[in-house]
Amino acid sequence: MRDVAVYGVGTSVFGKQPEATVFDLAWQACAEALDDARVDRVDAVFAATVFEPTGTAQRILHGLGIAGVPVVVVENACASATIAYHEAYESIRRGRYEVVLAMGIEQMSSRITGAIQPQLSDPEGQMGFAQPARYAMAAQRYMYRYGVTPEQLAAVAVKNSENGAANDRARHQHALTVDQVLGSRMIADPLTLYQCCSISDGAAAAVLGPPRQGAADVSIRSSELVGGALWDYTTDDVPGFDIVRRAGRGAYQMADAVPDDVDVFEVHDAFTIGEIVSSEALGIVDPGLGAELVASGGSAVSGTRPINPSGGLLARGHPLGATGLAQVAEIVWQLRGRAGARQVAGAKLGLVETAGGGAAGLDWTACAVSILEGNGE
Amino acid sequence: MRDVAVYGVGTSVFGKQPEATVFDLAWQACAEALDDARVDRVDAVFAATVFEPTGTAQRILHGLGIAGVPVVVVENACASATIAYHEAYESIRRGRYEVVLAMGIEQMSSRITGAIQPQLSDPEGQMGFAQPARYAMAAQRYMYRYGVTPEQLAAVAVKNSENGAANDRARHQHALTVDQVLGSRMIADPLTLYQCCSISDGAAAAVLGPPRQGAADVSIRSSELVGGALWDYTTDDVPGFDIVRRAGRGAYQMADAVPDDVDVFEVHDAFTIGEIVSSEALGIVDPGLGAELVASGGSAVSGTRPINPSGGLLARGHPLGATGLAQVAEIVWQLRGRAGARQVAGAKLGLVETAGGGAAGLDWTACAVSILEGNGE
Repeated sequence: MRDVAVYGVGTSVFGKQPEATVFDLAWQACAEALDDARVDRVDAVFAATVFEPTGTAQRILHGLGIAGVPVVVVENACASATIAYHEAYESIRRGRYEVVLAMGIEQMSSRITGAIQPQLSDPEGQMGFAQPARYAMAAQRYMYRYGVTPEQLAAVAVKNSENGAANDRARHQHALTVDQVLGSRMIADPLTLYQCCSISDGAAAAVLGPPRQGAADVSIRSSELVGGALWDYTTDDVPGFDIVRRAGRGAYQMADAVPDDVDVFEVHDAFTIGEIVSSEALGIVDPGLGAELVASGGSAVSGTRPINPSGGLLARGHPLGATGLAQVAEIVWQLRGRAGARQVAGAKLGLVETAGGGAAGLDWTACAVSILEGNGE
Repeated sequence: MRDVAVYGVGTSVFGKQPEATVFDLAWQACAEALDDARVDRVDAVFAATVFEPTGTAQRILHGLGIAGVPVVVVENACASATIAYHEAYESIRRGRYEVVLAMGIEQMSSRITGAIQPQLSDPEGQMGFAQPARYAMAAQRYMYRYGVTPEQLAAVAVKNSENGAANDRARHQHALTVDQVLGSRMIADPLTLYQCCSISDGAAAAVLGPPRQGAADVSIRSSELVGGALWDYTTDDVPGFDIVRRAGRGAYQMADAVPDDVDVFEVHDAFTIGEIVSSEALGIVDPGLGAELVASGGSAVSGTRPINPSGGLLARGHPLGATGLAQVAEIVWQLRGRAGARQVAGAKLGLVETAGGGAAGLDWTACAVSILEGNGE
């Protein structure tokens, strides 16, 4: 098996932009990624979307002048784009293709009004047990167990809003205060509106291939995909996140790294509690200390363990099929030292983590974790 | 790279069965495939669907007691299931996973009324240029060029209806006459209703893994996935089907076989003209002789070049995300000598071909071709 690198990345602006078609968004992201990668062809495409109809990815590629190569469209809820990236990685690593485009696309605001509704065929969905309710239950239990306060929980949204304010492609670019976060409308106690990621429109892309001589490419040290239950209903360990732990363990092992080696993280903060529990599952902090890490500024861009410098799902927005590759793009920019006002100083090793479990109550979730390394350029 | 075998296959009944949920259909297909394969675990799942909402495959697996393994959902229009099969094949061949479940699912009749509508965002869709119109144009040109008659075209539907009458899992199990086919409602001249495949509900599955000692497994001699234009608008060669030719060429080469070596074919007969042109693109007959082959009985189960013994998409029905794996199941049954009244005598080598190009006018299509070999058991 051979090494794999990211040659280039690109994203559209993320936001509520119903006037932009999915083609507008995708062409922007893919053109930037292909230009950044300095390649004149790709051998295959792995595309990700949750809601776009069949043929959308192919029509995007047609418009880009990419023709005559295999295209595989993948869907795994919120982790769709990270899985497109993972499949691209595996296809190169194992010698199936040379240069591969991974792209994630989603135009949600013209299609979905309000929140994503649970499916009525789903027993948990019938009970109204959508994602906010699920995360809220975990948050309640977590707060009870570790004595965490609503203010500490809100600190995640505050930090990510500050990071988003330095990201001109983020959906939300206004720094929030703890009072603003806690004062926003209650969605599922204790999660207020500003503690939930927003439906968004966006696209992101990456071009992957075997390492090149002297290029500004970023090495993929590891990529791990696992499936299982995100939430553990069988023990008192309600936050669960065992699959994040497993995917992280696999990715660290393959990269021959430990959590302390990693300089910057993009993790799946669909809700504030998600970032806290993920940071523990990924070994960034010990269990129970995730809230303290963020409240103390430790996970700020200037902190010792920077998490979600892009603003994360909370501030960048969460167009389901695009998010994972936007996380990859942020880490690539960070490792190249080109993240502008939100640059983590001297970042050499970065980690992407995305969990995807469907819109309605699923005990079945995918988690993908990848560790990337800059070449010091 | 190592060899890959099909351990077991299964399908639901295919038909218009709005009372059956996608879970009923999928559980039936997967349980049969897992039982047939005699395995007690799988390491990963590649699932295919075009219309089912996010999370459906995972909930099906949850119900089957399959948990804790990676699941990748793929979508490539009519070729979705063949691509799930191809991704499973590649993942084993290249040492990524050991035993993999590929499954295809689609519950259409409870969701789609009438024909699949073109997308209004698609310029060709706006013109009403849906699949029947496209195939009809190719049929007109083909008939003009080769002097083929409507009766010869209808012979495909007649043959496949006869095969479907011997397949108790087919949607249509009544042998049709040429008069019945030509007398059915005109959809897109010259294609009458009975020359178009039907929206259906169904599921199909296969379990793949490395070859086992002394098992009734079927070897995968090759599997090829290509992308490109199905129709050639740039020359007089309107039927085009260049991607079928390319995928076939790749599959024959990898299998070290020529078309004459293959004893039984399952090809993508979404419309009667599709089977004719595919049979030429796959080298089963010379260009221009596809209609004569079927009209003369050469592609009947008892003929020298049996095509679509299952009844094909025309008689078995076409639940988009399930079809490719139903084709694989038919070939596996044929190569094991267990196809009952529609058994092709002494079949040793079989070929599956599926093309998938979206519901609306796309110049971009996927084509997957696989050649399988029985072990003489």
